[in-house]
Amino acid sequence: MKKIAVDAMGGDNAPQAIVEGVNRALEEFSDIEIQLYGDETKIRQYLTATERVSIIHTDEKIDSDDEPAKAIRRKKKASMVLGAQAVKAGEADAVISAGNTGALLAAGLFVVGRIKGVDRPGLMSTLPTADGQGFDMMDLGANAENTPAHLHQYAILGSFYAKNVRGIDKPRVGLLNNGTESTKGDPLRKETFELLSQEKAINFIGNVEARELMNKVADVVVADGFTGNAVLKTIEGTALGIMGQLKSAIENGGLKSKLGYLFMKDSLRSLRDSLDYSSAGGAVLFGLKAPVVKSHGSSDARAIFYTIKQVRTMLETDVVNQLVGEFSKEETND
Amino acid sequence: MKKIAVDAMGGDNAPQAIVEGVNRALEEFSDIEIQLYGDETKIRQYLTATERVSIIHTDEKIDSDDEPAKAIRRKKKASMVLGAQAVKAGEADAVISAGNTGALLAAGLFVVGRIKGVDRPGLMSTLPTADGQGFDMMDLGANAENTPAHLHQYAILGSFYAKNVRGIDKPRVGLLNNGTESTKGDPLRKETFELLSQEKAINFIGNVEARELMNKVADVVVADGFTGNAVLKTIEGTALGIMGQLKSAIENGGLKSKLGYLFMKDSLRSLRDSLDYSSAGGAVLFGLKAPVVKSHGSSDARAIFYTIKQVRTMLETDVVNQLVGEFSKEETND
Repeated sequence: MKKIAVDAMGGDNAPQAIVEGVNRALEEFSDIEIQLYGDETKIRQYLTATERVSIIHTDEKIDSDDEPAKAIRRKKKASMVLGAQAVKAGEADAVISAGNTGALLAAGLFVVGRIKGVDRPGLMSTLPTADGQGFDMMDLGANAENTPAHLHQYAILGSFYAKNVRGIDKPRVGLLNNGTESTKGDPLRKETFELLSQEKAINFIGNVEARELMNKVADVVVADGFTGNAVLKTIEGTALGIMGQLKSAIENGGLKSKLGYLFMKDSLRSLRDSLDYSSAGGAVLFGLKAPVVKSHGSSDARAIFYTIKQVRTMLETDVVNQLVGEFSKEETND
Repeated sequence: MKKIAVDAMGGDNAPQAIVEGVNRALEEFSDIEIQLYGDETKIRQYLTATERVSIIHTDEKIDSDDEPAKAIRRKKKASMVLGAQAVKAGEADAVISAGNTGALLAAGLFVVGRIKGVDRPGLMSTLPTADGQGFDMMDLGANAENTPAHLHQYAILGSFYAKNVRGIDKPRVGLLNNGTESTKGDPLRKETFELLSQEKAINFIGNVEARELMNKVADVVVADGFTGNAVLKTIEGTALGIMGQLKSAIENGGLKSKLGYLFMKDSLRSLRDSLDYSSAGGAVLFGLKAPVVKSHGSSDARAIFYTIKQVRTMLETDVVNQLVGEFSKEETND
């Protein structure tokens, strides 16, 4: 039985969306057990599942505008913190929250703890590509600064995830750079390129450019947290901007345009769905001793369901313990 | 009379698109004179303008895959190099090319030369926003690495451009960062934030996030060349990816969808036009003693026309000499 701790109070639609997502996951997967952390009365309003689910009541929760490190220290009974503590105590195998990202990062680092040999866990998500397969990118912003050694570790982490959780054989690992030639980039990129070229545990295909990400130029894309964060937010902003402009082009296009929209509705919905990549789950704070996964703040029940599904696969494939093995091997080699 | 040197041989559609753009510009603007550098016979095939235009023949040209610095040194008679030399010699006031970006950067730096006090000229472009007004961003990749002092200079350069060339009163200058709080980012961002907060020559509004760029969160966005390049390419890649998916959603959507497309055609075209921002001109290698402007490699006659228009405005407003004054003032203050 896989035991998953879920912060019922995090995110814009908590606790309803969280609990409804849990209901669906419990129905679909018979090998999971969910611990819901949060306000019991509110949780009960939405909870229909009766088996393999428990509620751990707490009045405290971390708000989206709380200062992360401070919140973790001061709100020791917050739903998110209790979930992380359950993982540390071995009472849960993983923790999920749609709440304050920074606080979850802090809880992951200081409560759950790093895998030995991983210096700086990073945020990893599966992002959309035109063919619907997606690619994994990390670090998406857990760190403001990274060294070549960190990026080297992200390549290994991402590659293990793509292989185990997404079932990709020999995932192609690319280094995000300002050109494809091997000599491109700043010292961080040049040194990382050398490290990745010599790394036998991964299938390194060289530098990749941001323009090609949606064309699935690689299965795993390695970036420092600052650039990864900028790229992630640019994808989001550009997609939202274009969809918004498409909407206003239709609205301002007169009767003919509105009529056309009625005919095209299904096609446009399939476009929107292909950009909404919540079916791939949430963002993993990767490099920790257990899966700690951030679901988007605006997650609905469907997104929560898929995050639980993702965590279940991570537990089933035992990807974290495989990484523990890989990184202890690296230590021995040094 | 403003004298503009144009590399007739650079870009995917040269010389036809270049010369046709020149024809249109000469017709529209009576205060410019164009020098066309390149193969005279080929240029003559498309040149309809007869006044205020001259052809400086050369057989040599820089190819898109030439190694930039080497090409500039070895192909001394290349159309792009001759154009830059004309600026240096005072025979032209500015130079435009749609050719090899790296080579144009090298020609700008080594032939035209930097404004005294500007350490690292950067690439600046006007990028699209939802309201159609656009924002200016630099550095878009002239440099792989930047210091806080460089970013400080980009803020001044971008602000002068937005004010003079785009006519924006007190342009809002934002620093691209991984969060809006003043304490966000790596040391480069934190030090730059301090410098910009104290800079009286600009209207600094603080940190901005990549997600908000299309919402015109700022008129000028300052970034290091590595991040700026990644953001620019992500915008391009995401926009192309979405438009491609929209197209295939329509094509695979059956008869109903195709019928809808016929009705919506005009609206979709207006969307595409709003994303195509070539009417704002090309990318300026900014911080040089004269305007050196890169038009997109795939430029058509229309894009070339707008790049000439942009350069004409830069010359008319004398933005470069204003910057010379501003940076010599800074020198005296130090």
